[in-house]
Amino acid sequence: MRLARTGERGAERPVVVAEDGRLLDLSVIADDIDAEFIARTLPGLAARIAAGELPEITGAGARLGAPIARPGSIVCIGMNYAAHAAESGAEPPSDLVVFLKTANTVAGPFDDVALPPGSEKTDWEVELGVVIGRRASYLGSVAEARAHIAGYVTANDLSERAWQIERSGGQWSKGKAFPGFSPVGPWLVTADEVDPDRLRIRSWVNGEPRQDSSTADMIFGVDEIVYRLSQFLVLEPGDLILTGTPEGVALSGRFPYLAPDDVVELEIEGLGRQRQVVR
Amino acid sequence: MRLARTGERGAERPVVVAEDGRLLDLSVIADDIDAEFIARTLPGLAARIAAGELPEITGAGARLGAPIARPGSIVCIGMNYAAHAAESGAEPPSDLVVFLKTANTVAGPFDDVALPPGSEKTDWEVELGVVIGRRASYLGSVAEARAHIAGYVTANDLSERAWQIERSGGQWSKGKAFPGFSPVGPWLVTADEVDPDRLRIRSWVNGEPRQDSSTADMIFGVDEIVYRLSQFLVLEPGDLILTGTPEGVALSGRFPYLAPDDVVELEIEGLGRQRQVVR
Repeated sequence: MRLARTGERGAERPVVVAEDGRLLDLSVIADDIDAEFIARTLPGLAARIAAGELPEITGAGARLGAPIARPGSIVCIGMNYAAHAAESGAEPPSDLVVFLKTANTVAGPFDDVALPPGSEKTDWEVELGVVIGRRASYLGSVAEARAHIAGYVTANDLSERAWQIERSGGQWSKGKAFPGFSPVGPWLVTADEVDPDRLRIRSWVNGEPRQDSSTADMIFGVDEIVYRLSQFLVLEPGDLILTGTPEGVALSGRFPYLAPDDVVELEIEGLGRQRQVVR
Repeated sequence: MRLARTGERGAERPVVVAEDGRLLDLSVIADDIDAEFIARTLPGLAARIAAGELPEITGAGARLGAPIARPGSIVCIGMNYAAHAAESGAEPPSDLVVFLKTANTVAGPFDDVALPPGSEKTDWEVELGVVIGRRASYLGSVAEARAHIAGYVTANDLSERAWQIERSGGQWSKGKAFPGFSPVGPWLVTADEVDPDRLRIRSWVNGEPRQDSSTADMIFGVDEIVYRLSQFLVLEPGDLILTGTPEGVALSGRFPYLAPDDVVELEIEGLGRQRQVVR
């Protein structure tokens, strides 16, 4: 299933996007696509759709918000593609590198991106986002991880490199939490429909290719990430894990940083494409 | 005013702790001490108490939870006391060093602390916690900051140093987010009753002194922190800022790390004392 949220910011309505593009109104059975929904309603949702419980609505022209309401945590994996570590001047890590973004950075997949005041080093990062479905704490094995995943999203882990690296004392979150710095969506695609271990993952700026890799190139795969995270923090339903970005960002020196009127596009195979205009 | 939450974990009742120790039941006018309460109800609360709206309750023997419900974000300032930077082997920073903890680490001030499995380097950090009262984004000056603060709390920024430093790739959040690693309380003391710039701040392990400093020694004071944070993230009502710890932690090499049955106590002048048994 593909889940989405349509409408103005802060007043989004949860919907199911059917295979033929029709929108089914989730708001008749759920307030939002939040922790409560993901933990309790999502597991039985397919049967309720099949039973015709969700009326069709017309959503033509409406804004798409992020397909998940505000998560409890946004947990990010750094340097998880060897070629991106190299372009960033770092060795591939031998264990997860983890930082956090504030949850209020989540934005819609087509919302404008506001450059921070004075920023000259705002960068894109397409990432496979994992949405947690069941609480995960001290998992016993990697094999247990998959059952704790509700689904997957396309995400942009926007990063202001001067704040992240040059004026941060080395702690990256400082350049990661500007308003709107986590566009998510267009859809939350449920885990039963996705093989997260071999998805093409791409980005473009003004139509020119930037990143083009596969999640198969991740150093730590999705299950390994969930298992390892659970050893030092508690993952909860609705939490969002950003699994790292492949090579092809401006930090490499091969491309200019974002400037006003640039158009950023990001796509992951099966999870949909985002498009943001920089302001 | 001193606000608190009493009762079992996950079922706490919000109360006001009167000067004579009597408990007034806040639950008759508020669901919890959360973002909604802090933004909308707290500003007029003193008048409603004076009008006798809150009935007295007996809370003898009840557990004290954290005095705030789960915050939207926990934003931490690193190396904010020069002597602690020195004992950690670092230079005093010229700008804020910022990292985040997951919000689900909040625990009660007297809850047991669970050592992470196999941990040999779990450390205490007493910190002045700032609770945000009004949204703060791109504040125009340091002078504007104080109006965005709802109050202050005693907090323990528990840290597993092996995970924070040795196996983290340099990103500290990894050693900061174990379950229960942010004891907060006993009270949220409202901003009108606190001068945060000169509070004695202390900790003890098994009754022996560890940390003993003043918030006057902070490199970046409370107003400066709120102002600077607002330049790169959005602070929201209920968010918790941990403003850094003074010297006297185990990382210094002067004291042993925490072990089972150790008793940690932490106190900030006017904000109350915590006590945790290590398990």
